[in-house]
Amino acid sequence: MNVGLVGVTGYGGSVLYELLLRHPNVDKVNLYGHSQKVAQALEEVLPQLRRRDSILPYDSADIMKNNDMVFFATSAGVTTKLAQPFIENDFPVIDLAGDFRLKADVYEKWYKKPAPQSDYLAKAHYGLADFTSSKGSKYVANPGCYATATILALAPLVKNHLIDPSSIVVDAKSGTSGAGKKLSQSTHFSQTNENLQLYKVNQHQHIPEIVQELQKWDKDLPYIQFTTTLLPLTRGIMASCYAKAKSDVTEEKVQEAFSQTYSDDTFVNATEGIFPNLKQVIGTNFCDIGYQLNPVTHQIVIVSVIDNLLKGAAGQAIQNFNQMFEFQPDAGLDLIPVLP
Amino acid sequence: MNVGLVGVTGYGGSVLYELLLRHPNVDKVNLYGHSQKVAQALEEVLPQLRRRDSILPYDSADIMKNNDMVFFATSAGVTTKLAQPFIENDFPVIDLAGDFRLKADVYEKWYKKPAPQSDYLAKAHYGLADFTSSKGSKYVANPGCYATATILALAPLVKNHLIDPSSIVVDAKSGTSGAGKKLSQSTHFSQTNENLQLYKVNQHQHIPEIVQELQKWDKDLPYIQFTTTLLPLTRGIMASCYAKAKSDVTEEKVQEAFSQTYSDDTFVNATEGIFPNLKQVIGTNFCDIGYQLNPVTHQIVIVSVIDNLLKGAAGQAIQNFNQMFEFQPDAGLDLIPVLP
Amino acid sequence: MNVGLVGVTGYGGSVLYELLLRHPNVDKVNLYGHSQKVAQALEEVLPQLRRRDSILPYDSADIMKNNDMVFFATSAGVTTKLAQPFIENDFPVIDLAGDFRLKADVYEKWYKKPAPQSDYLAKAHYGLADFTSSKGSKYVANPGCYATATILALAPLVKNHLIDPSSIVVDAKSGTSGAGKKLSQSTHFSQTNENLQLYKVNQHQHIPEIVQELQKWDKDLPYIQFTTTLLPLTRGIMASCYAKAKSDVTEEKVQEAFSQTYSDDTFVNATEGIFPNLKQVIGTNFCDIGYQLNPVTHQIVIVSVIDNLLKGAAGQAIQNFNQMFEFQPDAGLDLIPVLP
Amino acid sequence: MNVGLVGVTGYGGSVLYELLLRHPNVDKVNLYGHSQKVAQALEEVLPQLRRRDSILPYDSADIMKNNDMVFFATSAGVTTKLAQPFIENDFPVIDLAGDFRLKADVYEKWYKKPAPQSDYLAKAHYGLADFTSSKGSKYVANPGCYATATILALAPLVKNHLIDPSSIVVDAKSGTSGAGKKLSQSTHFSQTNENLQLYKVNQHQHIPEIVQELQKWDKDLPYIQFTTTLLPLTRGIMASCYAKAKSDVTEEKVQEAFSQTYSDDTFVNATEGIFPNLKQVIGTNFCDIGYQLNPVTHQIVIVSVIDNLLKGAAGQAIQNFNQMFEFQPDAGLDLIPVLP
Repeated sequence: MNVGLVGVTGYGGSVLYELLLRHPNVDKVNLYGHSQKVAQALEEVLPQLRRRDSILPYDSADIMKNNDMVFFATSAGVTTKLAQPFIENDFPVIDLAGDFRLKADVYEKWYKKPAPQSDYLAKAHYGLADFTSSKGSKYVANPGCYATATILALAPLVKNHLIDPSSIVVDAKSGTSGAGKKLSQSTHFSQTNENLQLYKVNQHQHIPEIVQELQKWDKDLPYIQFTTTLLPLTRGIMASCYAKAKSDVTEEKVQEAFSQTYSDDTFVNATEGIFPNLKQVIGTNFCDIGYQLNPVTHQIVIVSVIDNLLKGAAGQAIQNFNQMFEFQPDAGLDLIPVLP
Repeated sequence: MNVGLVGVTGYGGSVLYELLLRHPNVDKVNLYGHSQKVAQALEEVLPQLRRRDSILPYDSADIMKNNDMVFFATSAGVTTKLAQPFIENDFPVIDLAGDFRLKADVYEKWYKKPAPQSDYLAKAHYGLADFTSSKGSKYVANPGCYATATILALAPLVKNHLIDPSSIVVDAKSGTSGAGKKLSQSTHFSQTNENLQLYKVNQHQHIPEIVQELQKWDKDLPYIQFTTTLLPLTRGIMASCYAKAKSDVTEEKVQEAFSQTYSDDTFVNATEGIFPNLKQVIGTNFCDIGYQLNPVTHQIVIVSVIDNLLKGAAGQAIQNFNQMFEFQPDAGLDLIPVLP
Repeated sequence: MNVGLVGVTGYGGSVLYELLLRHPNVDKVNLYGHSQKVAQALEEVLPQLRRRDSILPYDSADIMKNNDMVFFATSAGVTTKLAQPFIENDFPVIDLAGDFRLKADVYEKWYKKPAPQSDYLAKAHYGLADFTSSKGSKYVANPGCYATATILALAPLVKNHLIDPSSIVVDAKSGTSGAGKKLSQSTHFSQTNENLQLYKVNQHQHIPEIVQELQKWDKDLPYIQFTTTLLPLTRGIMASCYAKAKSDVTEEKVQEAFSQTYSDDTFVNATEGIFPNLKQVIGTNFCDIGYQLNPVTHQIVIVSVIDNLLKGAAGQAIQNFNQMFEFQPDAGLDLIPVLP
Repeated sequence: MNVGLVGVTGYGGSVLYELLLRHPNVDKVNLYGHSQKVAQALEEVLPQLRRRDSILPYDSADIMKNNDMVFFATSAGVTTKLAQPFIENDFPVIDLAGDFRLKADVYEKWYKKPAPQSDYLAKAHYGLADFTSSKGSKYVANPGCYATATILALAPLVKNHLIDPSSIVVDAKSGTSGAGKKLSQSTHFSQTNENLQLYKVNQHQHIPEIVQELQKWDKDLPYIQFTTTLLPLTRGIMASCYAKAKSDVTEEKVQEAFSQTYSDDTFVNATEGIFPNLKQVIGTNFCDIGYQLNPVTHQIVIVSVIDNLLKGAAGQAIQNFNQMFEFQPDAGLDLIPVLP
């Protein structure tokens, strides 16, 4: 099959392109700019990819004619404007941006941009690939990177009602690739290096996404305490999560919850008492989780790690793609970890 | 005055030596090894210091004869063995190690080493320099690095009973210099770089120290949830602290608590709504704190940053030294920050 | 086919194992320790690989019985001791260590270890994969990482006699993974980070290897000036090479030399006037080269970059493997670059 | 005395300000913007400095009235425009920029900006502080960072005519602080980190500065081969220099040359056979040099390291200040090295 990709020049888009080029069920990847009027040689923009391909001008009719589906790896606000023809033609889309993940009012509040129209939003499927299937969906909203790491860490406890949801605290940390290619003071090397910088405290746009999804398992779950810290490294997210166990919760119950949730999952590994290092998932689509009930404080510590550009973006998009077209769940995702 | 320094070869000891060499009230610094039998040229061990001094063999009588006081920058367990003659002679000691910070049983449980004898412990003063004075003390136990960062962050809230103490969560992060000079797998560059590694989860020896000190303000405060993560950078600690505000607590009350506690403090700066970057305190003795009451979750986020080798070790030791001998509180501590 | 791998636990061995697992012509990889007596679960030693395989005890007969060839990714001195049965049985070996790269006396001088016996050495083929073919060889000595980067940079100029060979200066830099897993002062994070450290100046064991190979093109080439600097990063080598152009050499001649040498090469890319960044080859088997004749000094600057664990070790070993068994030259080497 | 400082907001200016605040002969530092019209609170621009000072609007008459001298830490081109009133009034200036370092035509060629007028240039003294004295000068052009590291490394050999000057190769490396505060692609963290990037190959504006100064000792010295590489670290320059020793040059002669040149120098330390690590000078005004005659290639390797913002900028400016006003040569420069 042929797939279109809009937005190859961003970090997420580049990684997705590399995955698609090696995907066993993909014959051809056609690249499109989301705003450009003339074709551009990929080599000029991304010489590191060593490919002779062109980035074609944006044309929705052309995209639908020459491809069987399309990925959007564009920044927030773009698909709100461009999604219409695809949705109206039931043409398959996987959207890596945040536009179709939230309800309209929530999106507008947190993203400070106009939301897509409601009937379009209603067609979107939130593709948390380890919990839902994109089979049958025509428009998949691929989850955010922090949201993925956090929801996967908390899901077993929330689903099984083992914790007091009002006690949840998430201290999330991310490498700089999550902030993208755009130059900024906080990602200027002399500023970032040997530093930790908090940003968007209590204001990160993944907060409502996490809450919305967790509420599917516990409708009374309130807004969570969620902090993001920028790390002096390029790739990876660690979400360190804390929550009070309910009084009757034991180590066994916690272990059972994680085990039931993830023992059959290809990409999520949860281990009691062993906390993952960030680096062990970099270059892969894995989410590794360590958890422990502290017998003294009766708090549960859950630490999850992902590669923000793979499991947190392009890798999960491939999982959704595989589900959408009923390919092998792990097709195209047998990736070499970064060693060392 | 002359001061002795036992343990110059460690990271904390080296930094302390540099501070003492420039301290306006110090005439001479005599260096001693804690186990060596013959003198050693400092240049051989620490050429970077560019000093012709010798590290003298350990001899407590000699130390007391030639100095007006002595600093111990040795690892855990050493002063338990060596402190006796100094204590029995009421000779002034500032001890950077953990041996004299805790009650005997607590020390033995968390450090897994024999504790100093009780009557000696009784003479030790826990020198949290921004809250107590070492004036009149003959034996000062200088606080641990994580303990300093955490206690300073939480003190205003605990003292004023503004939070539910059972809800406290501390997600602390440290650079590798905190782990010292000793080679280990987790500080091997290829392993540490581009990585985050949790260690001693629920088992860090600074936990009982933090709790012991906070209980002085709230005797019902239980053990806190405390996690430590090793960062890919050399210097600095960030303690991200979370706690549920009591129901009637407002932004104003929180602000008042921090303001009352720290507005006259030379080295601690607390600001509402602005979270400090780690790097802004590196090379200095400052502890910068940012805090915010989240109106949605009613949790308070408090983030403190220190240079672990200065405010978290040698710098605070100088504060205690200044108090002990009634020097200017900031004598020897006008340090140039790392720019950039 | 089945392949054996001795030494999976080192950095080079782990990477090679990952490549072999995904190689289209490899059915099974059997792992062996080079000294161990009993089998060991791979998971215990290298949990990051997420494989249930065992590392089997070393037994040369067993290796030959169950495999069609064997890779040695062991440290210097090991294959000198272990190679005999394979050589005597003409069993195919690819050896990533230095033992079989040099003449006996040169090896003993630079490695300070006994060399393999001469008739064995005579059977070894130095597998600089972009210049020679391992087809028909039974024992391939895979080149060293610095040697690969340097020889590829200088080959076009030396082969075409465009430079004064006595003027060659190589300023080579490497990440810490080149120093392996063994703990050492110079790779302790607090020491390596924010630092540059020279090591083995004029004494690096890759110097004779480089000279030996360049002399195949210019027998009068003398020993070169070669310096190695340890970088605060994990992966990659940059070799910055300098040499005086002969007086009649023009930009065109230089360009022609590089073009003729590499225009058909899959893995080596040479560009006039554009110097490669280190990162653009990380995660791949490419060697990128930039070069420029300085019209003012009449020196030629040639900068080559490789991933030391791929093109400088495991990747080139796969190239040699492909040649040995007449597989596609790039089989198993379509690797995703590190982005970003 | 009172000193003015124009350009505190840059990295070099900030560091210089910190040094001046602690200089024993400085009573007051007045800050000026070079283009601003109204005063600005320093705290707003540089909160990290923790100072209540103001940055005053630029006014040359005011600067001369309220200060005994002025430092310019502005970017290239600024002092060309602003120096006139100071020069015409013989008011002491120390200029950290490149404007007054070169002859007019050379400046215009390499900086691509109009040069200062010739009679002004004629009054400028190139303040390479370890070789000349700024005593009696009214306008000191403070050397460039790369120029300082390179000239100090090569001076003993060039002065004593021990090397073939046409064989000089300098492979210089710098941390990102040398590139300043301005955002750019090459200093974007995701791009810089785990990377090496060459820039301005054969085009760096410090090349003519180095050559001009070395020619004072050897008028036949031609343009040198000089390369710059951007490192993934914040502070420091390493200049690795190579040159052919003349045929009769021995190890003793080389050692004598370095020893004669630097044995009485407070800030330059040269050692035979021991190459400095970059980090050993960071935070200090030292230049450490290691050198070795390679008996095989008869090349001399000389490696110098400096902190680019201290010895390479603000620290050397203080040396020149001390000379200009006949203060102690090391006044204000007893700095604590970065440990670790």
